[in-house]
Amino acid sequence: MESNNFSIIGKKTIRFGDKQKAVGKTVYVHDMMLPNMLYGKILRSTMPHARILNIDTTKAERLPGVKAVITAKSIPLVNFGPWMQDQTLLPVDKVRYIGQEVAAVAAEDRDTAEEACELIEVDYEELTPVFDPVEAMKPEAPLVDENLAKYESLHPSVACGNMASHSSFQKGDVEKAFEDADTVVEETFSTQTQHQMYLERRVALASYDIFLERLTVWTSTQTPFMTAGHLGQVLRMPISKIRVITPPIGGGFGGKANPLFEGHTAFLSLKTGRPVKIELASEEDFMCTNPRHASVSKIKFGAKKDGTITAFQFEFYLDNGAQVFEGPAVCDLGTIFGRGPYWFENYKIDGYSVLTNKIIAGAFRGFGNPQVSWARESTLDILAEKLSMDPLELRKKNTIKTGQPMVTGQIVENSGIDKCIRHCEETHGIGHQLNGENQGRGCAFLMHPTGLLSSAAFVKIHEDGSIVVLNGAVEIGGGQSTLLAMIAAEELGVPLEKVAVVLSDTDVTPYEWQTVASRTTYNSANAVKRAAADAKQQLLKIAAEILGSDIDPEELKIRDGLIYRKSDPEKKISVHEVSFSAHYIKGGPILGRGSFFRDEPPRDPKIMSGVSTAIWPESTEGIQIIDVEVDVETGLVKPLHIGFANDCGRAINPLTIEGQMQGGAVQGLGFSLMEQYIFDNGKMVNPSLLDYAIPTAMDVPTIKATWIENPSPTGPFGARGIGEPALVPTAPAIANAIYKAVGVRINDLPMTPDKIIKAIKAKKKRKK
Amino acid sequence: MESNNFSIIGKKTIRFGDKQKAVGKTVYVHDMMLPNMLYGKILRSTMPHARILNIDTTKAERLPGVKAVITAKSIPLVNFGPWMQDQTLLPVDKVRYIGQEVAAVAAEDRDTAEEACELIEVDYEELTPVFDPVEAMKPEAPLVDENLAKYESLHPSVACGNMASHSSFQKGDVEKAFEDADTVVEETFSTQTQHQMYLERRVALASYDIFLERLTVWTSTQTPFMTAGHLGQVLRMPISKIRVITPPIGGGFGGKANPLFEGHTAFLSLKTGRPVKIELASEEDFMCTNPRHASVSKIKFGAKKDGTITAFQFEFYLDNGAQVFEGPAVCDLGTIFGRGPYWFENYKIDGYSVLTNKIIAGAFRGFGNPQVSWARESTLDILAEKLSMDPLELRKKNTIKTGQPMVTGQIVENSGIDKCIRHCEETHGIGHQLNGENQGRGCAFLMHPTGLLSSAAFVKIHEDGSIVVLNGAVEIGGGQSTLLAMIAAEELGVPLEKVAVVLSDTDVTPYEWQTVASRTTYNSANAVKRAAADAKQQLLKIAAEILGSDIDPEELKIRDGLIYRKSDPEKKISVHEVSFSAHYIKGGPILGRGSFFRDEPPRDPKIMSGVSTAIWPESTEGIQIIDVEVDVETGLVKPLHIGFANDCGRAINPLTIEGQMQGGAVQGLGFSLMEQYIFDNGKMVNPSLLDYAIPTAMDVPTIKATWIENPSPTGPFGARGIGEPALVPTAPAIANAIYKAVGVRINDLPMTPDKIIKAIKAKKKRKK
Repeated sequence: MESNNFSIIGKKTIRFGDKQKAVGKTVYVHDMMLPNMLYGKILRSTMPHARILNIDTTKAERLPGVKAVITAKSIPLVNFGPWMQDQTLLPVDKVRYIGQEVAAVAAEDRDTAEEACELIEVDYEELTPVFDPVEAMKPEAPLVDENLAKYESLHPSVACGNMASHSSFQKGDVEKAFEDADTVVEETFSTQTQHQMYLERRVALASYDIFLERLTVWTSTQTPFMTAGHLGQVLRMPISKIRVITPPIGGGFGGKANPLFEGHTAFLSLKTGRPVKIELASEEDFMCTNPRHASVSKIKFGAKKDGTITAFQFEFYLDNGAQVFEGPAVCDLGTIFGRGPYWFENYKIDGYSVLTNKIIAGAFRGFGNPQVSWARESTLDILAEKLSMDPLELRKKNTIKTGQPMVTGQIVENSGIDKCIRHCEETHGIGHQLNGENQGRGCAFLMHPTGLLSSAAFVKIHEDGSIVVLNGAVEIGGGQSTLLAMIAAEELGVPLEKVAVVLSDTDVTPYEWQTVASRTTYNSANAVKRAAADAKQQLLKIAAEILGSDIDPEELKIRDGLIYRKSDPEKKISVHEVSFSAHYIKGGPILGRGSFFRDEPPRDPKIMSGVSTAIWPESTEGIQIIDVEVDVETGLVKPLHIGFANDCGRAINPLTIEGQMQGGAVQGLGFSLMEQYIFDNGKMVNPSLLDYAIPTAMDVPTIKATWIENPSPTGPFGARGIGEPALVPTAPAIANAIYKAVGVRINDLPMTPDKIIKAIKAKKKRKK
Repeated sequence: MESNNFSIIGKKTIRFGDKQKAVGKTVYVHDMMLPNMLYGKILRSTMPHARILNIDTTKAERLPGVKAVITAKSIPLVNFGPWMQDQTLLPVDKVRYIGQEVAAVAAEDRDTAEEACELIEVDYEELTPVFDPVEAMKPEAPLVDENLAKYESLHPSVACGNMASHSSFQKGDVEKAFEDADTVVEETFSTQTQHQMYLERRVALASYDIFLERLTVWTSTQTPFMTAGHLGQVLRMPISKIRVITPPIGGGFGGKANPLFEGHTAFLSLKTGRPVKIELASEEDFMCTNPRHASVSKIKFGAKKDGTITAFQFEFYLDNGAQVFEGPAVCDLGTIFGRGPYWFENYKIDGYSVLTNKIIAGAFRGFGNPQVSWARESTLDILAEKLSMDPLELRKKNTIKTGQPMVTGQIVENSGIDKCIRHCEETHGIGHQLNGENQGRGCAFLMHPTGLLSSAAFVKIHEDGSIVVLNGAVEIGGGQSTLLAMIAAEELGVPLEKVAVVLSDTDVTPYEWQTVASRTTYNSANAVKRAAADAKQQLLKIAAEILGSDIDPEELKIRDGLIYRKSDPEKKISVHEVSFSAHYIKGGPILGRGSFFRDEPPRDPKIMSGVSTAIWPESTEGIQIIDVEVDVETGLVKPLHIGFANDCGRAINPLTIEGQMQGGAVQGLGFSLMEQYIFDNGKMVNPSLLDYAIPTAMDVPTIKATWIENPSPTGPFGARGIGEPALVPTAPAIANAIYKAVGVRINDLPMTPDKIIKAIKAKKKRKK
């Protein structure tokens, strides 16, 4: 942690809205009611794969209190999807997973809406389903979507069979490198489906004004602008006729990164001319949203005796579920970051995202990286043992340096991994081992991108010198508004309490791609900083005019709301006075605007193919060190301590950085040890918090999260995003610790007690 | 009316929101309810002038359901006022008019709030009041405010006694000019107090969030930004902690140009932590708001035999009521435009705004000009008769020309009066007389400023090329949002249906001084045009980059959403494609910003003193020709026809121009013939539409309103404001018509039947 001469940033700052949340007064979409509001409900498929022969809505429509029933026949058929246009709001020909939307109903109350759904009669003809992504890749597998290759696609790879995308990277002569290696390890790892477990279930409230011909949608989303665009597409309306408003939301973690049933809600409102609200029941939110992709990783390392890794081969199979959705992008990120914060001369990496007849997987904190890091960081420890090396030394020997290329050929601009290692060696006892019985310490490294696509912001200066920042980010719990206020206050030199922030209203806030991808601190904050700088320039120009003709705006500085000449601080005027003058005497009010879009650094087309247009301009590195104790009788793994270092570039608000790191590690614990969808013939059989275990306060050890300031050349004041990385290395760090503790290794997440016991028994058997 | 090569502007366009209004679905502040909302009520003075000895709120506070009672003692004492800081929210020492706020109450329901007001005991000591502004100027008059000279003031004139301001203009040797004149006329005219008669009574709803420490106020106002500033001042909060939202309002006409009880409402919400709504009862809205200033004009003309007016002397007394308020500004405008669209070599003009113990007068369509035009245009007809000239010829001989100075010394940039005369001669039969018995045709000229102070706007381009315009103007019924959408659509070359407009929300829309002063078409539209031009420049730059390296953005034009090379229209790309590219490929979203502040043209300090800093950068001219028939038995004046020409610079939306002209003329009819406050010892005795007559459909003749396009050099596409002028010349045109019809003249508005009968009788007596 470095200090610097900042007024606002770098200070632990309580998040705006925390008091309101603490007393339960925050208004979420769930709390919203509109006069005359109807309740919507979605009828969902009970079949994993079936042809729809007929849908009869007659009885449902006749039920008193029912105001609208929609099926694919009653709405325009528009294809959409983030990468491939393979989705429609409602299915025409067949259903592809249990939980898929089949019809939707709006009624005067919730019970009537539910009853109406039960009265809709759907005739299905069952089809053979496929559930495993590796199975689904086989030529004889049933096709989840016969038209897959025909849809319009933004992703450059060509779909085929059930394979939605194929990302590929190859450099050097991998085969020869394996032949020449002193040691080779080859392993297969798998990960489970995990729910984002946001506290606020998904909900949308749509209100179409038939007289104004305008639609307003309040929705708990991470992506109000993409939702507005999506609604424009499916409703065939210009986006200017659609307003999507997102009040503070109760978490998202990627699970709200895409529109889900906003379109259904909107159509029901259009049909009825009344506001319609759809709230998911708890079970629906498990079964019908977009959890983390399950995956299979086949990984192979070749190394020299001294620990130099010379060959890396990686096959990554991502289980998309029944639609392409975010699969190609998650697969891209997973494969790009499969190599982690290391540099190997020869590599061959192939990622496949594959359709199966299961719930559609989506974005989730880490976006493919936890899956691949799980395989890589586990295997590195296996390799170290085989080389009789300390796993830390093996990692240190192979870390990537600033100026070396990523697997895309793009150059790493400012690697922080060495700083993180140094810090962990000094503070977290990385490399040391525990002495207690059945205790072990494991570590894992991470590399993760920060920021993506574009952001924009407005800044207004009121006549009294107080500030309003307008940006499309969502207040998702990460302290987004506080962060952006701090950025504007720092740039403009005004006190934080004079800055208000308005977020996530597509009518009034400038475009923001999404609140995902650890990007608010990087993209949104960069846009806000530019908008503030634009306003500041105007402010200083007027100040210079007022202070005297001999003064150049460049000579002026602002601090604590006062503008003064650097060389003569007595020559000063307040921001208030200057803004008042602009409003009432000359020039007009001061408005700032800022757009940010990081151009993608050049890739090497010779070494990669099939990768999406998504760009990864900035990456961050980190290390997690976890101590565990294994109960060899019950198989329970008890985390004792989590130590953690992450390059944050520049700490804007240390309080929320710490919160993100702690929260991420805890979500990582869940991924590692307990959380999982259990499927039976494509149906999730544990859609309840009684059966789907997540970490509670009792499961969480002390977490010592530290952040390293290794300023990013392009981040605002040098900052990088910190939201996702915390979760990325938790599972392999725990696996490595378990191995140190009891000598067993589980390759299939989560590492539940039954698997641990089974492995311990098998190990004992082998010893005998 | 001229045509031009525009795509959007100049076409009659139905106002956005009209359908919604037609079916009664528009949500006004009166319709708004918040959970847990309290009702506020204000206790008002029953005395025109009295010392407050004691206020006992004990009984009121004990009434079940009462949640807060505030008096001057329970809130911070902050002085405020638009020109002089002589106001406080609640009085400390004395009350100065019947209706003044004394205390305020918030309770669970309306009845309880009213009952609580009745339970507040106020001990008064009566003081001698003064009601007439000319009387109030006398040294022996009781002082309405003993501290008047001590307050901080923005107005340059020095207050003294009951005189709040004195504006003065003098040029040439007026005394000698009168001596040398062939003919001199001297008259005294007076005007009454008139209510703005907006359909929606004043209302405010304040909600202070004690956890977010933010105040939101929804109020039916013409001035959300000034209200936010006012609340910041009285609550001692930065404006960034205050959000003032104004949904469409049911008219204003200046009557909502200042905050009124928003501060009381806010304090009640602060005290209770609950939303509080105050709605004025119909009687309160008559007695406790800010109607048009009553006035007395002493006017004197000296002319040569040929009709050249050589001397003009004018004394103008404006009845402010009990606070200075807008008096100095109304007085400034009245005196500056007292000379009308004429040029006289020698003049002496003095305007006085004076305190009396009556309701506080405020802004009202015309802002002093109807009062002075009444005196001037009536007297010109008297002078014409004395000179045995046609009144039209007398006026034509003296009209002001482009390049001649106004009474301030400021140069008239582009006078339209000659075009208006020509049009009226050709079309409206100006100068011709009627032949029917007791019928007459009168005419009157006008000159009125358009625009004032600053405006600002944002423009956003969505990824699909549709547009959002953000501006702080209020949708007051004049079609403000439609106008601003048309401006943006024209500038950006996109279809109107792809433009959305967000207005009047101080958090999200850029600053807009007020929606008054015929300024939306001039100031707001100029700001929107600049913001759109800023966005357009970015759009064309990207388009040029995409279209080819040989193309300069200057070579491109946009029409109907297509950007094309002027010299080669096949070289084209849509706004949609360019904006999409900015969002997703390069550069970032396109945002435009625009501020507008017209610098004041230089004045001549030698000829004026005591005039406010307000600027009058643009003026517009017009003519009204009215035919009447007088019933000599009943004294009833029946308007037969109104002909009307007005320089609008450029017609943006002819439909709303026509509406403004028609509506203005009708409001002028009310001012001329029927509307008036009747006071008894300072108390309005007719605060009800049963006793306060306004024109109904039965009173309105055919109105042929035409607009002349005489482009303003500084208006957006040449446009000028048209909202106020329509009302300015109505009264003297009618007076002149009455004189032609029956040979009597009433110098005291309104020209009610009793006055007409009395004058006819007196005339008959004289004849005998």
